[in-house]
Amino acid sequence: MPDYYLEDFEPGRTFTSPAYTVTEAEALDFARRYDPQYFHLDPVAARDSVFGGLVLGGFQTAALAWALVQKTEMFERSAIAGIGIDELRWHKPVRPADTLRCDFTLVDARPSRTQADRGIARFRYEMRNQRDETVLSLVIIQLLRRRPS
Amino acid sequence: MPDYYLEDFEPGRTFTSPAYTVTEAEALDFARRYDPQYFHLDPVAARDSVFGGLVLGGFQTAALAWALVQKTEMFERSAIAGIGIDELRWHKPVRPADTLRCDFTLVDARPSRTQADRGIARFRYEMRNQRDETVLSLVIIQLLRRRPS
Repeated sequence: MPDYYLEDFEPGRTFTSPAYTVTEAEALDFARRYDPQYFHLDPVAARDSVFGGLVLGGFQTAALAWALVQKTEMFERSAIAGIGIDELRWHKPVRPADTLRCDFTLVDARPSRTQADRGIARFRYEMRNQRDETVLSLVIIQLLRRRPS
Repeated sequence: MPDYYLEDFEPGRTFTSPAYTVTEAEALDFARRYDPQYFHLDPVAARDSVFGGLVLGGFQTAALAWALVQKTEMFERSAIAGIGIDELRWHKPVRPADTLRCDFTLVDARPSRTQADRGIARFRYEMRNQRDETVLSLVIIQLLRRRPS
């Protein structure tokens, strides 16, 4: 995979992350640390929730989307820092044994006004499960390096 | 702490979560799983990053804000599901040994148009460190139960 810098992403071109299959163990581990609601923590009690069974916490789902995009290694040279997230929506529950992929597309990018070596990029993420249902979407704003001249 | 339902939160009234001190071990654990950038994973190499040392991944920071608000136990009866997040911004880095608190304030709430027992609430979170600097802010949209009549 080549190194991608700010100007190497074309608006509207979509890349897809590797696939990843979620385990119940990591769902429970995240739930214990960050989101101990019963429908994330207790597979039996979760049957009586609106989800009908154990589901991953929403912040874990978001972290997985980020993790999948990083697995492409396209941001290894260019990522400086995260600025923010807009329009995050949890469309469908994610369950243990689901297999996830995340599509990501540059929305827009602009050079920094104050620092010549970097710029601000917005990417739209869309994470899908093994049935091709969108489970999560968001727009992430990142500070990326420009290609060294 | 009493049970809080949708109509029990007054717009504009701010609550504060318990405090929590971050450990390097949990920063590294999260980084290994979800965000293996060197400034989250390697305390020595991180010195040469824009952060000048190890910082938590942004998705871990967000998950910690959620975890802190849940520790109030105000949402134990009312939380049904998350809908989304808007306007998330990482204002300052979070480092191991930082002590965090999260303020949260109802922005607005409305009953569901289709289901009488629930409604949609938007809360603004503002997480601060031990120097009272805002490190993270966001608006979270949640489906909450209305008070049983």
